[in-house]
Amino acid sequence: MTEVLQTEEAVETELIQKAKKAKAAAGELAKADTAVKNKALELISEQLLAEKQFILNENLKDIEAGRANGMSESLVDRLKLDGDRLADMADALMQLTKLNDPVGEVLEQWQQPNGLDMSKIRVPLGVVGMIYEARPNVTVDASSLCLKTGNAVVLRGSSTAIYSNTAIVAVIHRALEQSGLPVDSIQLLEDTSREAASAMFKLNDYLDVLIPRGGANLIKTVVSNSTVPVLETGAGNCHVYIDETADKDMAISIALNAKTQRPSVCNSCETILVHKKWADQHLPELISALQAKDVAIHGDEAAQQAGNDIIPAQEADWGTEYLAYELALKTVESVDEVVKHINQYGTKHSEAIISEDAESVQQFFTEVDAAAVYHNASTRFTDGFEFGFGAEIGISTQKLHARGPMGLPALTSTKYIIKGNGQIK
Amino acid sequence: MTEVLQTEEAVETELIQKAKKAKAAAGELAKADTAVKNKALELISEQLLAEKQFILNENLKDIEAGRANGMSESLVDRLKLDGDRLADMADALMQLTKLNDPVGEVLEQWQQPNGLDMSKIRVPLGVVGMIYEARPNVTVDASSLCLKTGNAVVLRGSSTAIYSNTAIVAVIHRALEQSGLPVDSIQLLEDTSREAASAMFKLNDYLDVLIPRGGANLIKTVVSNSTVPVLETGAGNCHVYIDETADKDMAISIALNAKTQRPSVCNSCETILVHKKWADQHLPELISALQAKDVAIHGDEAAQQAGNDIIPAQEADWGTEYLAYELALKTVESVDEVVKHINQYGTKHSEAIISEDAESVQQFFTEVDAAAVYHNASTRFTDGFEFGFGAEIGISTQKLHARGPMGLPALTSTKYIIKGNGQIK
Repeated sequence: MTEVLQTEEAVETELIQKAKKAKAAAGELAKADTAVKNKALELISEQLLAEKQFILNENLKDIEAGRANGMSESLVDRLKLDGDRLADMADALMQLTKLNDPVGEVLEQWQQPNGLDMSKIRVPLGVVGMIYEARPNVTVDASSLCLKTGNAVVLRGSSTAIYSNTAIVAVIHRALEQSGLPVDSIQLLEDTSREAASAMFKLNDYLDVLIPRGGANLIKTVVSNSTVPVLETGAGNCHVYIDETADKDMAISIALNAKTQRPSVCNSCETILVHKKWADQHLPELISALQAKDVAIHGDEAAQQAGNDIIPAQEADWGTEYLAYELALKTVESVDEVVKHINQYGTKHSEAIISEDAESVQQFFTEVDAAAVYHNASTRFTDGFEFGFGAEIGISTQKLHARGPMGLPALTSTKYIIKGNGQIK
Repeated sequence: MTEVLQTEEAVETELIQKAKKAKAAAGELAKADTAVKNKALELISEQLLAEKQFILNENLKDIEAGRANGMSESLVDRLKLDGDRLADMADALMQLTKLNDPVGEVLEQWQQPNGLDMSKIRVPLGVVGMIYEARPNVTVDASSLCLKTGNAVVLRGSSTAIYSNTAIVAVIHRALEQSGLPVDSIQLLEDTSREAASAMFKLNDYLDVLIPRGGANLIKTVVSNSTVPVLETGAGNCHVYIDETADKDMAISIALNAKTQRPSVCNSCETILVHKKWADQHLPELISALQAKDVAIHGDEAAQQAGNDIIPAQEADWGTEYLAYELALKTVESVDEVVKHINQYGTKHSEAIISEDAESVQQFFTEVDAAAVYHNASTRFTDGFEFGFGAEIGISTQKLHARGPMGLPALTSTKYIIKGNGQIK
């Protein structure tokens, strides 16, 4: 019993100690000039390259430990750093210096009849808690986005990346020291236990928001257990609907792109819905095109008749996020049916209609409940960079705070500033 | 065991049944024209007055039951309806028809280099879950704000107001029927058990947001237990800081107003912080002015020396929301100390500085972490109506989604609409 209590206290101690430091640093960071923050980002960029060998050596320890523990090669690949990947990170940091600083932006300004001068400005959130999986690039990514938006951050990465993360944060700390910004702005938890993560879920006194980055299970655990508000980035069960009026070549081109350009990401297509009238003419060609790209098709009756090697679709297929060269295919009779299907099985991420009929498009836009709805374009564009935001914290499938690709403003809150000359109520 | 299971199933049944109806209605409501929604609000306003006697009779049943159960007279007063209160509700509904409909508003519009036409528009949240305490006016308030913003709502009021709420919702349903909008848009749970409320906390499949309206305990329970995102309206431990440069009369006038104009509300002042130099000259006068208004003062050493009948302040006083003719008073030596005190004990609601020194004001504005910061004005202005929003869902002390007084836009989300002509990635 005593031992358990001691362990718990030890867990609390590192987390709370670091969270307190982060909170104190957040107050300083909130006041930092844009130029100073950009200079810090530049210094981090330079240091990452200058200390390349140190980082790669530490990264190698994680990889060796991973392999010794039987880590799969695909996970090893996500964990692995090399010169190119570090150069990409350094480059992303330089790009970030060029983006507008949202902090201090005046969103609204007006005067009340009683003479009160009102304004609404953007302010940092405060302290961001980040819980993420193996990829060490998230360490740089999260730190730099938080720094640019004046937020302190408490990072809880995976135990499998602890050497890499520790090295990266040490390098960032050295750069922060040069920049004059508080080194405590960025805190990495050495304790990567589940208990430490669970304690973060309830750390409302120190954390203003929690951001999980990783697989569906991680996100679900955080959302279900956290009393700290969560910025949720969710799964994508995205659909491409080919309307009866769709241009054949465009429809096939978009369906192929949405499925095969990069099947492992959340904005790739998982189910194609085809209007019966279009299917009557073109379904065999669509199926052949998909199969030529090695896409396995779980199809309904009509699909099974229109092509070979179609796996009969089960109810579960409509809700499956394959993230692979595999999709479900269903024929439908109306946009009503499409809306109903997507709103039942979709994850409110990205949904496309291929059509030449304005009324169908309008109905789809209005009635489909999703962060992004597309007409005659691939769902693959749902991405902060493709939207022109220059940076992306993630893609939100929640409806509060931010929905869809989240740029820097998603890491801010607002504050009302009211100037008077003695007004009382 | 069987009995318990049956009860649980029955609980699930009413909630899930009504939540499903609300979700189906939300799809229709999201498409409704502003004119149709305004007409419905007008009809509800008329019907509330036309069916006054019915509503008051039903309200009387709640009051009688309450008194029979020993309900305090102050609670009876919050529960009680009369002609004037109904007229106020009817009037608020007419005011609501005059406000801009946020749904459909284009927030941003741009074109990407690849020709994609992008826009970000406001859309309803979907289905709002409302959990609230005795006051039956919240039933009208929540229903009408949700209706105006195209959201369906599932209402879970208090068992002590069940007759009143049932009557009001029946009247609203009759008005909705006339308006042509879906009657199912507004659902009232007959089951007012804790179990039904707890089931709402986890109803992520049907509810897009939960809004608790009531005391600190209710809000805390909802925030701590809900996996449905919560729109939190919080407590207010608000401060007035009187700087060394503060104008004496203005400082006393604002301090009195912030404390005594309506002490029971969240934007009233709970602690006055006074700079030592101002205190040296004017503290006795401030204390006399407060005591003349029957304000009990929990003061530090300096306050105890400057006045009579000062209760020695305890550590707990700095964190107390009195909501009464009672406050804490503390002398400080710098704006740094003020910032530290407020950020430690405050609830991030409304904070005021009375000062003639621009630098102190700027430091206060930048460093105090609160939804609203005031210079030379009373904290009592933090309110949707005083801010000119025309309606108020509540005052948010959270940092995500909406902060400070929440007008109609807080009940909306956004959606990206992307128009292409065959773009693929």
